[in-house]
This record gives sequence, C-alpha cells and structure tokens, in this order.
Amino acid sequence: MIHNFSAGPAILPPSAIKGSIEAIQNFAGTGLSILEISHRSKQFEAVIEESIQLVKELYQIPDGYSIVFLQGGASLQFDMIPMNLLNENETAAYLNTGVWANRAIKEAKLFGNVNIIASSEDKNFNFIPKGYTIPSDAKYFHCTSNNTIYGTQMQSFPNSPIPLICDMSSDIFSRPIDINQFDMIYAGAQKNMGPAGVTLAIIKNDILGKVTRKIPTMLNYQVHIDNGSMYNTPSVFAIYVSMLTLKWVKEMGGTAAMEKRNTEKANLLYAEIDRNSLFKGTCEVEDRSKMNVCFVCNNAEHEEKFTQLAKEKQLSGIKGHRSVGGFRASLYNALPLESVQALVDAMQQFEKNI
Amino acid sequence: MIHNFSAGPAILPPSAIKGSIEAIQNFAGTGLSILEISHRSKQFEAVIEESIQLVKELYQIPDGYSIVFLQGGASLQFDMIPMNLLNENETAAYLNTGVWANRAIKEAKLFGNVNIIASSEDKNFNFIPKGYTIPSDAKYFHCTSNNTIYGTQMQSFPNSPIPLICDMSSDIFSRPIDINQFDMIYAGAQKNMGPAGVTLAIIKNDILGKVTRKIPTMLNYQVHIDNGSMYNTPSVFAIYVSMLTLKWVKEMGGTAAMEKRNTEKANLLYAEIDRNSLFKGTCEVEDRSKMNVCFVCNNAEHEEKFTQLAKEKQLSGIKGHRSVGGFRASLYNALPLESVQALVDAMQQFEKNI
Repeated sequence: MIHNFSAGPAILPPSAIKGSIEAIQNFAGTGLSILEISHRSKQFEAVIEESIQLVKELYQIPDGYSIVFLQGGASLQFDMIPMNLLNENETAAYLNTGVWANRAIKEAKLFGNVNIIASSEDKNFNFIPKGYTIPSDAKYFHCTSNNTIYGTQMQSFPNSPIPLICDMSSDIFSRPIDINQFDMIYAGAQKNMGPAGVTLAIIKNDILGKVTRKIPTMLNYQVHIDNGSMYNTPSVFAIYVSMLTLKWVKEMGGTAAMEKRNTEKANLLYAEIDRNSLFKGTCEVEDRSKMNVCFVCNNAEHEEKFTQLAKEKQLSGIKGHRSVGGFRASLYNALPLESVQALVDAMQQFEKNI
Repeated sequence: MIHNFSAGPAILPPSAIKGSIEAIQNFAGTGLSILEISHRSKQFEAVIEESIQLVKELYQIPDGYSIVFLQGGASLQFDMIPMNLLNENETAAYLNTGVWANRAIKEAKLFGNVNIIASSEDKNFNFIPKGYTIPSDAKYFHCTSNNTIYGTQMQSFPNSPIPLICDMSSDIFSRPIDINQFDMIYAGAQKNMGPAGVTLAIIKNDILGKVTRKIPTMLNYQVHIDNGSMYNTPSVFAIYVSMLTLKWVKEMGGTAAMEKRNTEKANLLYAEIDRNSLFKGTCEVEDRSKMNVCFVCNNAEHEEKFTQLAKEKQLSGIKGHRSVGGFRASLYNALPLESVQALVDAMQQFEKNI
C-alpha cells in the first residue's frame, strides 16, 4: 500500500475513485461515459444540483448564499474577488500568511488599494498573526485559513466588521465552520474536495453588485450564479468526482466527523515529532495545521537518509516545500490513520537505527 | 451500441476512455491515481511535454509559437485575447458568424474598439460571409472556424494583413491547416480534443507584450507560457485525456486522415439529407460543416416522430439547438462511420414508413 501524503492534487476517498471509473464506463445509466456527455443533460444537471445540496448540508448554509463551481483554481479567485468587490478608490484588508496570501495581495493591488493588516513574513510565515484590528472602513477582509506550504492554520476566525472572505483551498470541509461568520469562502478542489480542475465558491449574495467597473462576463460571479455554474461548459468530470467526495464526507458523518478524524491523525504525528529526538516541527505549536504537518531533522544530514527510508516504506509525497525544507505530510480528509501510523513507525525505526 | 452525436462534451476515441480508466487505477506505474498525483510529479510533467509535442506534430508548428493548456473554456479566451492584445484606443476586427463569435465581440468591446467587418446574422448565421476586406490598421482579425449551433464552417481562411486569431473549439484537429496563416488558435477541448475542463491555446510569441494595461497574472498568456502551463495547478486529468486523444489522432494518420474520415462521414449524411424527401439542410451548401450537420423536416410535424425513431435506434444527442430547431448530428473525429450509417438508415426507414 502506498501512503499518499501529497500536498495536492491529493488523496481522494476510495469511493470517489471507484465511482469515477464507473461513471467513465457508464454514467448514470445513460450507456455513455461522463467524459462524453452533454453538460446540459438532465443527468449532469442532477450532479450539479446534488453537489450544491451537499455543500449546503455540510456547512449548514442558509438562504442568501450562492454556491458555484468555477475554473482556474484559487489563483483566478485572487483576481475575481477584487474585480467583483473592490472599486479602484477603495481599500481591502488582507492578512499575509504565506505565498498564496501574497499572491492574492499582489492581484488585489491591480484593482484597488490593499491594507496588509498583519503579516508573519518576518518569521517565514511560521505562525498566524493575532491581535490585529480589522478596519471597519475597508471593503472586505481576506484571509487564508490554512497555509499548505508552512503548515499553519487559523484555529478560529475573527469577528469581522466588514465582509470576511476566506481562501479555504487546503482545509475546506476538514472541520465545522460557522458559515454566518463568512461572506465568501472559496477553494480549489484539488486538496480536500476533488481532483484538479474545479473551484468552489460560496458567496453571500448581498456583497455583489456594488462595483462600478465593467466585469468581463466569465469573471463575473453574478453571471455564474444566474446560470447555475453553466454559463459555459463547466469542468464536468471534476465536479462529478467532487460530488462523490462530498458524499463520502457526509456518509462518514460530515465535517464534525472529519475534524475528529483529522485531529486524531494530526495528534498522532505531532506527538511523534515532539517526542522523537531526531525531528522538530517548524511552526508555532498553537498554529499548527491539521492538514499539512511540516517538520525537519535536527541534524540536516539526516534528511536524505530519512527520505530514503520513507521511499522504502512507500511514504509518498512527504518532501517539504523548498521554502521550508525538510518534510511535509499532508493529512487531508481522505488520508487514513494507518498512513500516519506508517509514517510514525518509520520515524521511530529511524531513531532506533540511526 | 449507442451512437453519440452530442455537440459537446462529445464522443472520444475508445483508447482515450480505456486509457483514462487505467490512469485512474494506476497512473504511469506510480501505484497512485492520476486524480491523486502532484502536477509537479515527473510523470505528469511528461504528460504536458508529450501533449505539447503532439500538438506541434499534428499541426507542424514551427519555432516561434507557444502551446499552453488553460482553463475556463473558449469563453474565457474571449476576454483574455483582447486583454492581452488590444489597447483601449485600438480596434480589433471580428467576423460575426454566430452566438460564439457574438460573445467574443461583446467581450472585446470591454477592452477596446471592435470593427465587425462582416456578419451572417441577417440570415440566422446560415452562411459564412465572404468577400470582406480585413482592415490593415486593425490590431488583429478574429474568426470562428466552425459554428456548432448553425452547422457552418470556414472552408478556407483569409490571407490576413494583421494577426489572424481563430476560435477552433469545434473543429480543432479535424483537418490539416497551414499554421503559418495563424497567429493564435484556441479551442475548448470538449468537442474534438478531450473532456471538458481544459482549453488549448497556440500563440505566436511575437504578438504578445504589446499592450499597456496591467494584465491580471492568471489572465496573462506570457505567465502561462513562461511557466509551462504550470503557474498554478492545471486541469490534470482533462490534459491527460486530451493527450490520449491526440495520440489516437496521430496513430490514425494525423489531421489529413481525420479530414478524409470526416469528409466521408459528412458526405454520407449530407447526401441523404439532400436525397430524402422528408429532410432538408439548414445552411448554404458551400459552407456546410463537416463537424455539425444541421437539418430539419420539410414538414415540421414529422420532427417529433423522427425524434422518437432516433431514440429507438439509440441515436443520441441529435436534437438541434433551439436557435435553429430540427436536428443536429455532430460528427467529431471520434465518431465512427457506422454511427452515421445508422442515422442514414433511420432516415431512410422513416421515409418509407411515414
């Protein structure tokens, strides 16, 4: 068994893999492949509808929010958000917690003013800034809930006096949230929700329609909302696999069950990192992510050897991002506890035999 | 056997369906699914590389062009093209041959001036305008090679004094082209190239870098070129299936063989439409598309009955677009001659038994 710790695209539940193959062979009893069927077919319209229902259920989303499936990843959202929400003479507030937050900031500056209200850049983003004040005269506040590269995660969200927008690409559906705190949540699917190629956006309707610029049609949230994610051909297969994954989350007990599962996995691994004399974590303990666990060897010379052992033990995708180094084990929803145990076993074996 | 005449997403070659299932089970010997593997893995980098090579080979693309895989369909290209190529005070020339050309025109107007140099709108787009002059002082000339909804197709391309940009979404790789005539070709994959979720763009490098506006990063062609289609996570699976489809085109003999195959299919169906007393084509004969064959019943009351017969004969997806009515049989590369024969047989049976 290969243990897939990839940071994304990442492990999916077995039922999503199995279901995706079945749908390629024969989608919804049509006798046609899901790769060959019209997105306007009633069978695929039912997939979009079910996907929306699952998102609503999993996050208990009330009326007043719209759910759309887009393309272009979170990176395109970095442009669409200020394009749809920020006039040129207005200011948006951003929290800088890493590379992706930085990219969001860079793009927002093309459309208006940006106020970076707090940053952890001075410590290579190894913590989540706290104690900041969100200015009530900014247009919105943007934050990144989980920072894949650095292994930090917001453990709670501020009560924002202005619309709160959150990039949840790497921890969506990994824990319960209070949707009422948020005005927009978005996520590239390819970590916790599905394969690469689709982006989920959950948008409170009343934040839209307030900018004066002319928004290109494909970049206008209202167009995608009004057309039920079907203004043009959506990413059919990626939406289908995402639906299968969301179904699995629901069947497993929803976001509360995911949080329990993810906490158990993360606790197991962090405990070993803290216990094992050869390793250490790279983040502030209170900001540690349950999704991406970053750690290094105390002796840098050990890292190549542990990489070799990990390979032998079929621990796949644990190389750390170049900006942090060392190791990163991504523990997304679908990763089983056995895989974390296999990694912990390898770390213990490594300590004994070094 | 179901005969898949869907206008898109559309039929794919059996080898692409089979290969996509195999890659979901075990991608390139990794033991992991292609849905769960990093886009930065060497195995997926090889897929991007092979896809680019296949595009180059099939269209004999010389140095000086870049090939990128994007997201958002042709619809996002309607924005990206003027955003990257047209300054606000400049004019682009567009040919109006239908709904999609119209959408391209509408978006271009957000970025600069548009000169519609010819249109077939007055005849519900049932022909391709000819005899127009492309103004040499416009920034570029944009046309749509095949009009899926109306069943018209450009049989040749003008010698343009300015950069020629062509939306080939519904006939890409269906026939040889002289790449030297074009400065940019683009296509949503989901008709002749792969599943929904990826867009191919072939761009002559020297048309870029000439606008003064600040282009959002994700909408900047040069960014995608410089990053080898990996600025952010690309649509991994859709690219893989497209590669399998392009491989099939090559193995079948390339675009010349596709043209032969498509001509044979189209001739068979148009001959029956012209012969059969119950049906008639909807387009000017000289502009008839080999990809999308549009026809109606001479007696409108027959249409429901023929729809019923088509259903019995498992002729799937032949309902015409609402703006033309009647029937539309899409004969994309992967559709076998037998399917066209089955449709012709049904038309003949219908004529006998009515």
